[in-house]
This record gives sequence, C-alpha cells and structure tokens, in this order.
Amino acid sequence: MRIVVIGGVAGGMSAAAKAKRTNKNAEIIVFEKGRFVSYGACGIPYFLSGEIESYESLIVRKPEDFERAGIKVNLNAEVKEIDVKNFNLTVEINGANEKVGFDSLIIATGASSKRLPVEGRDLEGVFTLKSLDDGIAIKDYIKRASVKRVGIVGAGFIGLELIEAFVKQGLEVVSVDIVSSPPPQFDEDMVDFVKEKVEEYKVKTYWGAGIDRIEGADKVEAMVIEGERVPVDMVIFSVGVSPNSEIAKNAGLELSVAGSIKVDERMQTSVDNIYAAGDCTHSYSAVTGKPVYLPLGSLANRHGRVAGTNAAGRLAFMKPIAGTSIVKFFDIGLARTGLTETEAKREGFDVDSVVIKAYDKAHYYPGAGKIKVKLVWNRKDGALLGAQLSGPYMSVKRIDVISSLIIKKASVEDLKAVDLAYSPPFSPVWDPLSIAANQAVKD
Amino acid sequence: MRIVVIGGVAGGMSAAAKAKRTNKNAEIIVFEKGRFVSYGACGIPYFLSGEIESYESLIVRKPEDFERAGIKVNLNAEVKEIDVKNFNLTVEINGANEKVGFDSLIIATGASSKRLPVEGRDLEGVFTLKSLDDGIAIKDYIKRASVKRVGIVGAGFIGLELIEAFVKQGLEVVSVDIVSSPPPQFDEDMVDFVKEKVEEYKVKTYWGAGIDRIEGADKVEAMVIEGERVPVDMVIFSVGVSPNSEIAKNAGLELSVAGSIKVDERMQTSVDNIYAAGDCTHSYSAVTGKPVYLPLGSLANRHGRVAGTNAAGRLAFMKPIAGTSIVKFFDIGLARTGLTETEAKREGFDVDSVVIKAYDKAHYYPGAGKIKVKLVWNRKDGALLGAQLSGPYMSVKRIDVISSLIIKKASVEDLKAVDLAYSPPFSPVWDPLSIAANQAVKD
Repeated sequence: MRIVVIGGVAGGMSAAAKAKRTNKNAEIIVFEKGRFVSYGACGIPYFLSGEIESYESLIVRKPEDFERAGIKVNLNAEVKEIDVKNFNLTVEINGANEKVGFDSLIIATGASSKRLPVEGRDLEGVFTLKSLDDGIAIKDYIKRASVKRVGIVGAGFIGLELIEAFVKQGLEVVSVDIVSSPPPQFDEDMVDFVKEKVEEYKVKTYWGAGIDRIEGADKVEAMVIEGERVPVDMVIFSVGVSPNSEIAKNAGLELSVAGSIKVDERMQTSVDNIYAAGDCTHSYSAVTGKPVYLPLGSLANRHGRVAGTNAAGRLAFMKPIAGTSIVKFFDIGLARTGLTETEAKREGFDVDSVVIKAYDKAHYYPGAGKIKVKLVWNRKDGALLGAQLSGPYMSVKRIDVISSLIIKKASVEDLKAVDLAYSPPFSPVWDPLSIAANQAVKD
Repeated sequence: MRIVVIGGVAGGMSAAAKAKRTNKNAEIIVFEKGRFVSYGACGIPYFLSGEIESYESLIVRKPEDFERAGIKVNLNAEVKEIDVKNFNLTVEINGANEKVGFDSLIIATGASSKRLPVEGRDLEGVFTLKSLDDGIAIKDYIKRASVKRVGIVGAGFIGLELIEAFVKQGLEVVSVDIVSSPPPQFDEDMVDFVKEKVEEYKVKTYWGAGIDRIEGADKVEAMVIEGERVPVDMVIFSVGVSPNSEIAKNAGLELSVAGSIKVDERMQTSVDNIYAAGDCTHSYSAVTGKPVYLPLGSLANRHGRVAGTNAAGRLAFMKPIAGTSIVKFFDIGLARTGLTETEAKREGFDVDSVVIKAYDKAHYYPGAGKIKVKLVWNRKDGALLGAQLSGPYMSVKRIDVISSLIIKKASVEDLKAVDLAYSPPFSPVWDPLSIAANQAVKD
C-alpha cells in the first residue's frame, strides 16, 4: 500500500507520521516543493524579533528523522497534476517530470499569502510571510538593505506579531489596516488594549485607511496611504491567505468555503481515498455546523492526524471545532473562540452579549492587571456562541474554558456553574469568566 | 423581613451583599466575632512573604461600605446559641448577651485550624493560620521574637505557601509532613517538581515523618521529629481545618461530611429558612454526586451568593462542583480537579489514567518549561473523573478546561476534540491537555 502526501509542513508531516504509525507496512512518500519540512511556521515572527536566534530551532523533525521512521521525503519536489481517475500524480523533481501512483493521497498544499492589488506590490523590498523561506528572506533583506522603517499592511494576528517583532528589532514601524480597530477577527469593543500598546511603542498607525500604492525607483522607498507619502524601506503584506487548492480543483475535486478543498468529517475529499489536511482545506464549526476556513497550525496538525489515520486504513474523525485562536502582542494577549457578536448576528442568531473588565489575579497580588471578557450567547436557550478575551497575555489562555464548553453545547448557566481554580496568584476569588457568566445570567 | 448572617468573611459577606441586592427592603444584620470583615484570607501568605506590604490591601470592603449599602455589621459579636424553634439567637456584644430574632438565618461561621495533639502545642510561638488576626500575630511574632528558624507542620496547599513566604523573608524553614510526597491532595506521581523546589531553596524537609513534640522553656525552642531535636524559633500548624459547626449542631441542625453543616442544593440546612455558606458547610461533587468538604474561598463566595439569594426570597442553586484547587509554590504551580486516581479507586470507579510531560509553550519559545498532566477517567465510558497538573505556575490554570468538562459530564474523547488555543507563547501546537487526551484515547 502506497500513501502519497503532497506538502511537508504541519498538515502533511503529521499526516505522514500518523499514517506510518497506523500502518507500519504502508509505503509513505512526501513531496515538498520547498527545502524545509516539519517546521513551526507560527514561530517565524519570534525568529524575526530575535527572540529565537536560529531558524533551525523552528524545525521539529528533519527529513533524516522521517526517513529513519520509514517515510520517504522529497524536497524541492513540486506536484503539478493529480490524476484522480488513475490514482497517480505528476511531480517535478530536479527539472524532470515523474509519474507516481498511489493507493491513498493526502493533499496538504497549504495556503499562500495575499498581496493587495496595488501599484508597486512587486517592487524589491515587498514581502509576504508564510513559509520559513519567507522569514529567512525578510531577515536577510533587513540586514542587506539596512532597513530602518518597515511598513506592515494588515493588522491581523500575524500583522500584530510582526509589529512587535520589528519594534523589538529597533525598527520604526508603520501599520496600515482598512479596519479602524484591528485586529478584524475581534469585535470593536474588545481591542482597546491594542491601541494602548501601539501608542506605548510609538508605532505609526494608519488604521481605517487604505494603501494607495508603493513607491520606489528599483526598490521600496515609500507607501502612499490615503494620499500621504510615508517613507519606508520595506513593506510586508499580511492581509490573509488563500488555500492552495488549484491543483485539487484542476483534478476535479470539489471546493468549499473560501476556495478550500471540500472534505467530510474524515478529511476525505469528494473522491474516495483522497484526503486533504491543513491550510488548503476547512474544518466544521461546532457553533454553526457549517464548514469554516481557519488556516491555523493547531488545526493543520489535527487534520493531518485524522487524514493520516484514515488514509492508512483505520477510522478517525475530525470533530467540529469551536474555532479558537490566540495572539500575543507585547505584554497583552487576545483570544477568541466560537463567533464574535458581529459574526453571530450575521449567522442569524438571536444574540445577547456581555462585556466585563476585571482583574486577572487577586487585586492585591503583585502584577495583577485588567482582563476584558466578552461572552456571546443565544438569547433563546443561553447556548454559548463565542467569547473574546483581551488582557495580560497569559491570562487570555482561559479562552480554552469556553472552547471546551462550546464543544459540549454548553450554556452561560453552565459556565456560571464551573468552579474555576482560585488562588491569589492565578485569579480573583471570582474568575473573570465567572464574573461574566454571573452578569450574563443576571441572577 | 430580617436576615441575620453569622460570620463576616467570604461566605457571610457575599451572602449579606447578595441578600441585600436581591431584596432591597430586607433588614440585613451581620455578626462577626473578630475585628475584620470581608477580607481575602487566601492572600495572607503573601502578606507574610512581604509581597503584599499592608494587610489592609487584603480587605475588600470595610464595615462602612456595607453600612452604606444598608447592611448592619457588628464586629466583636459572637453568636452563642441559635434557637431554631423560635427563630432567634443569642449574641454576645461588649460582654453582654442579646437576643435577636430573624426571618432567615445564614450560618457562615467558617472553620478552625487543627493542631496535632502533641506536647508543647500551646507554647508561646506556636501558631495556626486561618484568620487575618492569625496572620498579623505571626508577622508580629517573627519581628518581636527575632525568629530565624520556623517549623511548618503540614505541607498541604497552605503549608507550601508558608514555606515560600518564609523563604522569601530570609528565614530558615523546616517542613514536616507525615506524607512522604506532599501535598497530600495529589497522587504521588504528580509532585516531583515540589521536591525539586524544596531542594533548590534549601528547605529542610522531614517528609514521611511525624512530629513527636515541641520543646521550649516558656516559648518554642525546638521540634522533636522522629527522635531528632530540630531547633526552631516558631512552629506553625498547617494540618487542615475543621468546620465551625458546633453552634449548628447544638441547635439541632443536621451535620454532614467531615462534621460540616448539612445543606441541600439551595444551601438550606435541615431547617427551613436557615442556610449555611462557606467553610462551615459542604458542596456536592459533580463526579460522585456525594457531599464533599472543600473549605475554599472561591466556593465560600459561591455558597454565599446562593444562600443570600434564597434567604432573601428568590430561588438559586449551588450546582455540583468539579472540586478545583490550585496553588503556587515558588515558580511552579499545582492544580487539581475532580478526583485523584487514589480517590477515584477508593470511590469504586473502574479507573484508567495517563501521565504525560510536555512543554507548556512551543519548545523554541523563550521560557518554555515542562508541565506534567495526569488524566483520570472511567474505563467503562471514558468519563473524565479528574485531572492534576504541575509545572510553570501560570501553565496549570488550564485545569479549568477539565473542570468545565467535568461539569458537563464529558469524556476523554471530548477533551481530545477541543481545539485549544495555540500560538508559540501560549502552548505547543498540541496543548499538553490534548497530548494527554490523545494518549488516553489511544487513537
């Protein structure tokens, strides 16, 4: 039995490893178009900030490690075509095309960063950040071009991490986002701490503003934002990603939300024995039941595990997800799960919500800070639809409580009933989540 | 309508405040035998360590604040007797006994620290720690008697906090506990980090050893432990507490587990319109359904809120609890919820368990440390029975995920399905809880 995996980062390599563990006798072949496999892409901002010295720390397992486990890894090997009728694919290795047959296939082609369609977007000094190679190229360019001022287009999760990284590198940072209260993944009433931080660190922000064009003779010299010329030496687009699903689409596989490869709960595509995993595909939301496109490393690993198990002949399911994400921005954190109030209304729920601000530790405990909690629930039955947290960074990991409750279809009444851990260094006697639940229930 | 509250700390004052908010017209009278009300008793160790300079920071609301809210607070007022037939009580104020009638009564008499029945237990320099007055007396004695060496009997949660507090004060600390791997609230395989810390901070430990007696001419000079004379200038017993339920028992109210005042889900005692809250009473376990005695500040506040609501004429329920507790010991934390493996076996469950050790953040993120996770579940249906965590201190607050799942009768399969928040500063791509769940499910 031969299982082929296209793509060697999070989804692909966890699929390959899990397939091998599931079926020791299966032949596993991975094709990765880049020169690295199995790295923690989410760690790249910390490599740019200098908090991680070498990009090699980000590499979890090397090709040799996989080879030792009986997994054949081909680098610089780009799959050009999938033939779903004859179960083979065409791959370009060292400039030559090869045909490779398979019994099961796992597509883990990832996603590509978008660039806004503005003039100058392809000038030298304009980057996006998705792969480890992107990260290395950015760090290299900063040095080579003596970059002093960097423009970051987009202030979502990665955008914020890049702001922090470059501030820590001593660069002047200009942030542009069309949204006036980024990150856009949050309700507007939850992001005031973000504004405080950009002021504190003297980041020049153009929020609620569009970029007109990028200017420069042969390399980046300035961004023009709403008519104002803002000199920068480098520009990074961080305005989201699109799934790399073209190869699947060309093969006749069905697509789903945001152009991602359509899969069922087994991560199987519209063709039997062909699976997808990671940023090229989608998950299902536990709140809406609908497919949801969330390109996150944690989900890619989950997808891979499920796809790998099924591809190797055992049964596994990717259960619906709460949809949890988290980001650190200097000393604050932002976290969300489920739907925001805006999203829940858009989905047609009869939405109720509450926002509270409370200490994250006992008020008298050294270092206590304020955390903001927003709960969103269904007015009809109290079912939790989502939550957002912002505050001292470690404090927002408590989002996981809400994620767990959402998975169990719990209500704000249920949250109120949970005896959350209390001791002064960890929480006030009423945990902020309990305070929010008490207010939601209005008892 | 008159509501009387006996006891003015966590359970009592939250009951009084909630009763007033529930029924603005009710007359609320509090009798507190000490000189303080409404303080964070759990903060006392941090007052002893010097991390909190003044004990006044621990006081949440002063008697004047309650008076302004329409709640009458009597300090140094000890209730001597409750007459449950005629609905009145006898209280000693300024040396004189007074009779006070009530329509509803809330008993929040708290608990008292135990002393082991050894010779010398009443010598000058022997203390227990429960009330703010205890804390003030200990701090005062350290100064007055120039204490250099302190013996702490018991290495449970408070015992550990006291070890840390006195080490931070530059004192030599001797810790004794009959258990060889304290704290006794944990399975033995979960406490290795505790042993590392006492070694690191050169705490002299006699664990798995009993104290024979305390010696001294007119004040403490030494503890004798298993025949060895260990010089100390002060001894603190930290060997647990007993509920102050004598007054309730004398009045004919039924008692429950560990001698606590028996209550139903409304926190009502065996007599209608008489309630109990806090360390003098019990909760119900969501795992076993049985009453459980857990004298914790967080539960006291929950009890008080429910008792106060019911006493004031509206309906509220204290739902069964997971049984969550947490403690910081230097830079590590220990947390538990539900049952330990030992407890679960004792309860007759068909127990399965797993222990894993993993990074608490991405392995490459600065400051990442190892966290240990133990899951305990019912082999029959996978239902979570409990969990224990130990590791870098903020990392163990994730115990709340398991508490929430226990409240919802969830299984290890459910835990496996939760998409826990991932970003390198917060967690590895597989959160330690997910790693444990994956191992538990053996998929």
